[in-house]
Amino acid sequence: MVAQRLERMVRRVRQWRSGSTAGLVGSPLQVAPDLPRSDLEGLQAAIDDCLTAKGGELAARTQAAAIGATFLNLNEEGRRNFFRLLADEYDHDDAEVDGAIQAVLNSRDSDDRLRAERRLAQTLRPKRERLLRRFVGLDEGLPFLVDLREELLVHRRTDAAMAAVDNDLRSLLETWFDVALLRLVRLTWDGSPAALLEKLIEYEAVHAIKSWDDLRGRLGPGRRCYAFLHPLMPGEPLIFVEVALTEGLASGLGPLLDHDADPAPNSRANTAIFYSISNCHRGLAGVSLGDFLIKKVVRELASELPNVTQFATLSPMPRFRSWLIQALQDRDLLLPSEAKAISPDDPKLAQGLLKELISSPTLPPQMSLDPLQPILSRLAARYLVTERRGDSVTEVRDLRALDPVANFHLSNGARVERLNWWANPSQTGWERGLTMMVNYRYLPAEIESNHDGYVDAGTVSTSEEIRTLLAL
Amino acid sequence: MVAQRLERMVRRVRQWRSGSTAGLVGSPLQVAPDLPRSDLEGLQAAIDDCLTAKGGELAARTQAAAIGATFLNLNEEGRRNFFRLLADEYDHDDAEVDGAIQAVLNSRDSDDRLRAERRLAQTLRPKRERLLRRFVGLDEGLPFLVDLREELLVHRRTDAAMAAVDNDLRSLLETWFDVALLRLVRLTWDGSPAALLEKLIEYEAVHAIKSWDDLRGRLGPGRRCYAFLHPLMPGEPLIFVEVALTEGLASGLGPLLDHDADPAPNSRANTAIFYSISNCHRGLAGVSLGDFLIKKVVRELASELPNVTQFATLSPMPRFRSWLIQALQDRDLLLPSEAKAISPDDPKLAQGLLKELISSPTLPPQMSLDPLQPILSRLAARYLVTERRGDSVTEVRDLRALDPVANFHLSNGARVERLNWWANPSQTGWERGLTMMVNYRYLPAEIESNHDGYVDAGTVSTSEEIRTLLAL
Amino acid sequence: MVAQRLERMVRRVRQWRSGSTAGLVGSPLQVAPDLPRSDLEGLQAAIDDCLTAKGGELAARTQAAAIGATFLNLNEEGRRNFFRLLADEYDHDDAEVDGAIQAVLNSRDSDDRLRAERRLAQTLRPKRERLLRRFVGLDEGLPFLVDLREELLVHRRTDAAMAAVDNDLRSLLETWFDVALLRLVRLTWDGSPAALLEKLIEYEAVHAIKSWDDLRGRLGPGRRCYAFLHPLMPGEPLIFVEVALTEGLASGLGPLLDHDADPAPNSRANTAIFYSISNCHRGLAGVSLGDFLIKKVVRELASELPNVTQFATLSPMPRFRSWLIQALQDRDLLLPSEAKAISPDDPKLAQGLLKELISSPTLPPQMSLDPLQPILSRLAARYLVTERRGDSVTEVRDLRALDPVANFHLSNGARVERLNWWANPSQTGWERGLTMMVNYRYLPAEIESNHDGYVDAGTVSTSEEIRTLLAL
Amino acid sequence: MVAQRLERMVRRVRQWRSGSTAGLVGSPLQVAPDLPRSDLEGLQAAIDDCLTAKGGELAARTQAAAIGATFLNLNEEGRRNFFRLLADEYDHDDAEVDGAIQAVLNSRDSDDRLRAERRLAQTLRPKRERLLRRFVGLDEGLPFLVDLREELLVHRRTDAAMAAVDNDLRSLLETWFDVALLRLVRLTWDGSPAALLEKLIEYEAVHAIKSWDDLRGRLGPGRRCYAFLHPLMPGEPLIFVEVALTEGLASGLGPLLDHDADPAPNSRANTAIFYSISNCHRGLAGVSLGDFLIKKVVRELASELPNVTQFATLSPMPRFRSWLIQALQDRDLLLPSEAKAISPDDPKLAQGLLKELISSPTLPPQMSLDPLQPILSRLAARYLVTERRGDSVTEVRDLRALDPVANFHLSNGARVERLNWWANPSQTGWERGLTMMVNYRYLPAEIESNHDGYVDAGTVSTSEEIRTLLAL
Repeated sequence: MVAQRLERMVRRVRQWRSGSTAGLVGSPLQVAPDLPRSDLEGLQAAIDDCLTAKGGELAARTQAAAIGATFLNLNEEGRRNFFRLLADEYDHDDAEVDGAIQAVLNSRDSDDRLRAERRLAQTLRPKRERLLRRFVGLDEGLPFLVDLREELLVHRRTDAAMAAVDNDLRSLLETWFDVALLRLVRLTWDGSPAALLEKLIEYEAVHAIKSWDDLRGRLGPGRRCYAFLHPLMPGEPLIFVEVALTEGLASGLGPLLDHDADPAPNSRANTAIFYSISNCHRGLAGVSLGDFLIKKVVRELASELPNVTQFATLSPMPRFRSWLIQALQDRDLLLPSEAKAISPDDPKLAQGLLKELISSPTLPPQMSLDPLQPILSRLAARYLVTERRGDSVTEVRDLRALDPVANFHLSNGARVERLNWWANPSQTGWERGLTMMVNYRYLPAEIESNHDGYVDAGTVSTSEEIRTLLAL
Repeated sequence: MVAQRLERMVRRVRQWRSGSTAGLVGSPLQVAPDLPRSDLEGLQAAIDDCLTAKGGELAARTQAAAIGATFLNLNEEGRRNFFRLLADEYDHDDAEVDGAIQAVLNSRDSDDRLRAERRLAQTLRPKRERLLRRFVGLDEGLPFLVDLREELLVHRRTDAAMAAVDNDLRSLLETWFDVALLRLVRLTWDGSPAALLEKLIEYEAVHAIKSWDDLRGRLGPGRRCYAFLHPLMPGEPLIFVEVALTEGLASGLGPLLDHDADPAPNSRANTAIFYSISNCHRGLAGVSLGDFLIKKVVRELASELPNVTQFATLSPMPRFRSWLIQALQDRDLLLPSEAKAISPDDPKLAQGLLKELISSPTLPPQMSLDPLQPILSRLAARYLVTERRGDSVTEVRDLRALDPVANFHLSNGARVERLNWWANPSQTGWERGLTMMVNYRYLPAEIESNHDGYVDAGTVSTSEEIRTLLAL
Repeated sequence: MVAQRLERMVRRVRQWRSGSTAGLVGSPLQVAPDLPRSDLEGLQAAIDDCLTAKGGELAARTQAAAIGATFLNLNEEGRRNFFRLLADEYDHDDAEVDGAIQAVLNSRDSDDRLRAERRLAQTLRPKRERLLRRFVGLDEGLPFLVDLREELLVHRRTDAAMAAVDNDLRSLLETWFDVALLRLVRLTWDGSPAALLEKLIEYEAVHAIKSWDDLRGRLGPGRRCYAFLHPLMPGEPLIFVEVALTEGLASGLGPLLDHDADPAPNSRANTAIFYSISNCHRGLAGVSLGDFLIKKVVRELASELPNVTQFATLSPMPRFRSWLIQALQDRDLLLPSEAKAISPDDPKLAQGLLKELISSPTLPPQMSLDPLQPILSRLAARYLVTERRGDSVTEVRDLRALDPVANFHLSNGARVERLNWWANPSQTGWERGLTMMVNYRYLPAEIESNHDGYVDAGTVSTSEEIRTLLAL
Repeated sequence: MVAQRLERMVRRVRQWRSGSTAGLVGSPLQVAPDLPRSDLEGLQAAIDDCLTAKGGELAARTQAAAIGATFLNLNEEGRRNFFRLLADEYDHDDAEVDGAIQAVLNSRDSDDRLRAERRLAQTLRPKRERLLRRFVGLDEGLPFLVDLREELLVHRRTDAAMAAVDNDLRSLLETWFDVALLRLVRLTWDGSPAALLEKLIEYEAVHAIKSWDDLRGRLGPGRRCYAFLHPLMPGEPLIFVEVALTEGLASGLGPLLDHDADPAPNSRANTAIFYSISNCHRGLAGVSLGDFLIKKVVRELASELPNVTQFATLSPMPRFRSWLIQALQDRDLLLPSEAKAISPDDPKLAQGLLKELISSPTLPPQMSLDPLQPILSRLAARYLVTERRGDSVTEVRDLRALDPVANFHLSNGARVERLNWWANPSQTGWERGLTMMVNYRYLPAEIESNHDGYVDAGTVSTSEEIRTLLAL
């Protein structure tokens, strides 16, 4: 992904230098690649001109192009210094804030206070915000900001000032990537440009696309792929989801990824399985896209394919194995009957044996695992439904599910529908979910109440089958 | 325009009720059309649910649709009460603000202060902002906000709270109508949908379009029409400009509007005359569109038609006559030679006679006016270049030109190029500019410095011809 | 229509002269506008070069452009001479034909005969065919041929040689306007370019479109308009049909043309009424388009609007009144009971009175006509179903219905469904059908057998209601 | 290519059976796969119904779909029997032809003769022509005919009747693939659908495309690819040409195919090299496409890239080596000086040595070949310019160049510009042109006269450089 980003950046510098597309010529400033202290003055002058819009709005955008081109020429250290500059010099002015605070405190009446508060709000707006907004007006400016943020995220934890820059940028991106602006597009082999499809290969984060043949299969008969596109980044998917149309809930990954097995679409398909959802840009972390994508695709499929009435995922449990290894160490997890099945006499030993088995770095033969299916399924149900994030230090209870994928779908209003044994018997599948995968199901009529229950009270909606497992 | 707006509103209510397009069913609440105090509680409950996003983001948008549909069912009084509610109950919370101010004042160190300021900024954000943003996500939501603002503008002057609502809304619209999102479109008879062209008839504010034949002529050979469109309002031009391609600067309105006179495009055309520019939505007042439109069209024409090297307007002087009548009353305006030409012996009488003549409610015969051309031209030049807005009470000098059209083009970086006598000998032309019109010229190389000079110091750039008039 | 055609022709000359679009420069030859005998030689030389493709295929097309431009510069007499030239000099060569005939007669064996026949077929191909085909390759070449044929049609009856030219041209156009190439397009106010919609006003031949408001109504809620477009004439509809979506069969023209009466689409609509179908180009006379259009639109509507299950027309009976006036003169048409109703004692007088009444040049008051409805309805049914074309001289019986509109729909496989009294009480409606109009109904399941029955044996399919009328 | 064709055929049968797209249900007839004599009757009945359009035109097309589906179910023998049937039973009727001939011979006057000739022409039209035309109206019907012809071509040589079927089909395809209907499309990585680009991999016949990366390079910076598309086969290129933009004439294949070497477009490019041109469908053999494609692309590039002023190919000489081996055997080819250079004393031996060397099945080391460059270049020039096709038996001199690629470009009006030594030092390059490749150059101003000279008199246009070689 880094190589691709670099390539885009090079393209941008070239554009901004030549002014070829937007008619803006933004020659980079003469600064050393590591942006030493001695070069800061010139850069600040340029930023100041840009902020005050000297020469009019268009001149300000040209200036922004020059600043952007300058940034793209910097090395890693130079970029950190650039962010540092934004953090330290282009926040608000504390003196102004203090003055505005006094004006509020001294206001005579409510109207006067209203005006003073308005001024206070303005003094609190960081100066860099205007610079960042100007980039949006450049060709390639919005994706530039997305990539910029990808780099900025690293510095977030450094200190509060860097985090504040990131907050400003995220808040800007949230506005510009509001779902109202996004276009839901079905990607197809026959209709989508090769360059766009190539991005799927690049960005697929869940089940890697191995070749163009594999890619064709993902779009092909019995499969769908939908993405969100932004009007200012027409060649870049923001997020995409891959869907398989199946008869009943899918219980294993293999058939979904094996396109040769069943080349024709299944005419009895009644279920849409969302088996892969990938965010394409780390720079959009924290900008909510996935929940809207799933809901829009559900609506789209429901209206286009009346026979498809069931919507569910086939999802991994990324942290199940690591949680279980730890939990077997810390707590008594097994039911007496389960312990007995493993080691007739010694419950402690049973836990130890189980822990040892699942700690195997490679996938054991199915034969040796199958007897454990009931036990591991029950524990998986417990893991998904009962285990929550939490901070042992602050002892603040966090209502969110421990498993990040579970948390994502539960927040969206899905319910935990079914556990599938031996669903992904690959190395990765073993390391994450001990070969198990989960179906989260989206029942249109329940989505809202599930969402509320989960967000307000941490209540996890489950199927009968899951409830039975939990009741053991 | 009102009828069209009403029609759009009716369409929206229907959509939001039926949920036909966005799948959102937003049944209007049961309130009386004048929204009496007793009905406020239910409405507030709905708004509160929407703000807290009960049931998830999609539920919140459905709630917004219901609130929007409710608003559309209100009568004038009901709508004023609705705005009142937003003004009084959905601003920020003063107690929260006070608390956050104290936290800033008491902050221990700079990082702590940074966090406290961030919280303070959040407490200052009006609650209604989130409601307004949710509308954007609805089908037809963005134009709904534009129309809403058109109604809200009336109440702006009532009090500071109402103005604050408008400020919030304008700020939101400024983001959503950022020029980066707008698409410049050339409207043509052969390629543009009839429904879109029909909007030109509706919105043309400068020189009314009389018929479909007239409309065809405005787009036709030797003419161009460009508009800005927004991706969320594809059928609605936001602003458009009409251009005539001429040989040299146009000196009169007649030939520009008479399409039969010269049906073929002029192969010797070297000048693009912007003779009409119309904002389509009062609800976007204060959102900067026109300057970008002109500059983008200049660039577009320059690259498409290499022979066209001159860009200018043919513009009215809306306040020249009224200013002159007043000024002749207040001040000595005539040069001795001019006074003598009118009344050989009595300068006072000369001013009086001139004032009387131009006070004629109807256009006098050309014969009787022509002798005054030199005098009126000089006064017009003075009016455009020297006269500024200003507040006689505060005595704060305002650098902006008195004439609003002049101010618009000068802010964009144009210069005052030429005065045209008898350019618009219609009743309107008489009442505004005593038949005169101005060419403002856009010289690409001067735009930035002109802008700066005008905005920073009130310097008005002029042609040699105008300077000669002023030097008399 | 002539003015429009002329305008198109002027545009073509300009294009072909300047070579602007296809890069072909075809300067018209120096000939007098009436193409006198003395100018023929140069023209023939140009045509010969074009036929032998001197300089390659592209040169031949340039030559064709020159010949086309020459034609467009001719006056009426010149054009007749041009056609004459094609008729007399660019048919086949009789000597070559004779030689090829001898070769066939003398052929040794079947393979030899096959080759000889092939050569014979080639000698019979008129030389002009290749010239005509070359025009197709020019920009605007295909519409040029369509317009050319419109002019040629006039000369068809002159002699067999002129008719032969027309046959060649029609046969060429039949290939190029094969329905496989045509695109069915729904024309809408929101999506179709103004220039294309304007053509509807120009070409509507059945119920004139009075204004742009009327046009909007024809496309508007509860209405549809479909046209065939050709890829080489993208801005020109070839034929279009106007459809109203109604509840049950439409019984009168008024509501269909009155768009203000019911602005909203009827949610109970179950019937599509084809109330106007217009061919746009006389030059395509004899090229079958209408039957395909109706069938394609039926299929389109059926798939898009599942509630619409009935497809019918509301059609005029253009020759009913003139036929009836003549028939009442020639034959005894009235049943005894009918005669008695009109004149109790004198059947002859009854016929005379009826004839006199319907001979009224203007529409009589409804009151006075209503009593005749049963009689006139029965006679109309007879006219539609029983009366056929025929040649009293040759006594060859022609199976086709006398009424041309009836013949069109019956050939397409429709059936005569219902007669509607007072359906079009206008002057035209009186002169054609004595205010009556017919519904022809398209029952998908019957279309093929109806077609065969009608074409093979002249059998007219009818509804129960019509059969009852005929049984009287 | 066969696999792809089969896949398309299967898709068509499915479509025609289900009637899914065109609404036509054409169930295949019940015949055995080898179409034995006993099954012919049913098939003939279906064909006859189709020809007489029983049930109307739409019914006839459904019938055609059924016949097409039947054909697609046949095996190889069955298909040959099908073609046999078309050849023997669906040509014209000899008796009818004889009658029509008599009518011509007996005609009274010229008008009568004209009518008789017209009838004769009709009797000579093969009946199968109408069947073939009906296929065009089906979805996928036109590509079906193209594929059908690919199979039919094999039988062309069998006998005159089979050849006659092919002639009919080719003549139909010539009309339907007239260049006027074709759309020139630039294929790009960013804009063209993956499915369309994939066809390039399938159809590239000159320099195989090895991977999707290779494909991206062919479209990429400094490269262009243009194709002709037909409106009825939107996803199928008919023919395409690959172009490299270079500085001066390209002298070797390597750099053109190595996309990594120079990823950026050459800003000094002044030459467009057509280095690969591939017909995509054998079924269109004899239908002229390539000459138009080259000329249209030349025009397109010239208008888009004003700096590109030179247009040439880099072409193989497919038959040079085999011709030279033979010629060295038959004739004295070497100049005395050349012979001496190879074998100082024995000219015969010199020829023998040369023949032996070039007969080497594998490419010798460059070092050992370089000394021969002057001799082989001269012989190659002679081969291209002087050697013609010809039939030693009939002694009819054929003016066409012996080399098929030379003949193609010379017919198009190009000239032989330059020979390039070691231009393609691959195994194929050795076997064809002894590592040499030719530049044919298209000089817009000479194209027409070159064409005429070559076609009329066999004159080959050459550059100074080639003339020097020939003058030795």
